[in-house]
Amino acid sequence: MNLSKIIGILGGMGPSATVDLFNKIISNTPAISDQDHLHIIINNNPKIPPRINALNPGSETPLPELIKGAQMLQKAGADFIIMPCNTAHIWYQEISNSIYIPFYSMITNTVDQTLIQMKEKNPRVLLLATHTTINTRLYQHAFQQTAVTLLIPSLTEQLVVNQAISSVKAGLIKTNPYLKDLNKIIDDYANKGIMHILGGCSELPLLFPYLNEKINKLDPTLMLAQFAVSKSL
Amino acid sequence: MNLSKIIGILGGMGPSATVDLFNKIISNTPAISDQDHLHIIINNNPKIPPRINALNPGSETPLPELIKGAQMLQKAGADFIIMPCNTAHIWYQEISNSIYIPFYSMITNTVDQTLIQMKEKNPRVLLLATHTTINTRLYQHAFQQTAVTLLIPSLTEQLVVNQAISSVKAGLIKTNPYLKDLNKIIDDYANKGIMHILGGCSELPLLFPYLNEKINKLDPTLMLAQFAVSKSL
Repeated sequence: MNLSKIIGILGGMGPSATVDLFNKIISNTPAISDQDHLHIIINNNPKIPPRINALNPGSETPLPELIKGAQMLQKAGADFIIMPCNTAHIWYQEISNSIYIPFYSMITNTVDQTLIQMKEKNPRVLLLATHTTINTRLYQHAFQQTAVTLLIPSLTEQLVVNQAISSVKAGLIKTNPYLKDLNKIIDDYANKGIMHILGGCSELPLLFPYLNEKINKLDPTLMLAQFAVSKSL
Repeated sequence: MNLSKIIGILGGMGPSATVDLFNKIISNTPAISDQDHLHIIINNNPKIPPRINALNPGSETPLPELIKGAQMLQKAGADFIIMPCNTAHIWYQEISNSIYIPFYSMITNTVDQTLIQMKEKNPRVLLLATHTTINTRLYQHAFQQTAVTLLIPSLTEQLVVNQAISSVKAGLIKTNPYLKDLNKIIDDYANKGIMHILGGCSELPLLFPYLNEKINKLDPTLMLAQFAVSKSL
């Protein structure tokens, strides 16, 4: 008998980040046999038009494909949906409006979990994300009414972050050519007392094992996995 | 524009093996951006009744759930189906008959790829699989007309293999308590000149990085991933 809810994953943005979420759901599920694990339906569609430049004039919008993907998951039997792509949450409301099952926001969940985890009174957190996530102020808005101060990389630093993300999408994780530059940025902030980073693009937690180990790393994918397990069970 | 075929994965048996296939498809896809990757729909349903004892009198059959899962993938838009569970191929024909899209057999593909890879004239291969896969002679039948001789573990050895598989399903991979015993079995066969093992249960390739490195390891999950990429592109 199956009383747990079916998790729907609107994924493929990118595929390695989707594997990461899938893996983190499994390793965060209390299970000693297959049957203890959760039913998950994954729509891994990397063909969805790029989110990063979607707001530039003349660019194709990913919205119709995002809606199609969410509706497919609903029709296939998912009880709720999660999406391991921070940037795509620009269209969160429109996707949510297109389905009748719940669609839980990765951004909102990250804020909730961060506030629970943070012990300091006024923590300062470096936001690492795509320039689109930063420019649309997805995380800045979500943290606005909290005690957390988000720091945004400079334009030069942001170029490094963008390249590191693109390299993960090209399959370069352990061998990512921007690891050294990324660690340099993180070290510079650490020298100014910023000891937390938020991996606000789902490619970035894949690089966490290779980043400065003294820094506290906030992983929205792990937080989403833990949230999905608790919602499903 | 998307001209590649959509891969449907009938998974969850077990979930870690499904992550393994998903990951191997991604790392075997030539891609430098998300959009170069393949559209994959995964029905990860670990609630499917256990396959291992399904043929024992009084046990629940997984067949209705397997058919339901395959039909869901077809309805969701998959162009073909693959299933990363060797044992469940006992019901291959019935599942295949229940859908109109192709369902490619992991067993047949493993035989085809093994014959391509093998350089020896009369190779001897140790088959590591569930006792159900072995007792139903899935691989023995498939290799029957080939030059490959399959060796089957003794009853005592088989108990170790079963326990190693169950431990992977319980989440123990690097820390699998049967790694030492499994390596002992593999070493015993190696001492008799058997230098190839076939990981004929999709949990076993997850243990390959921790098994005797001098042994040639045939990985049906990797072979299935490579096959799916070539069929999709």
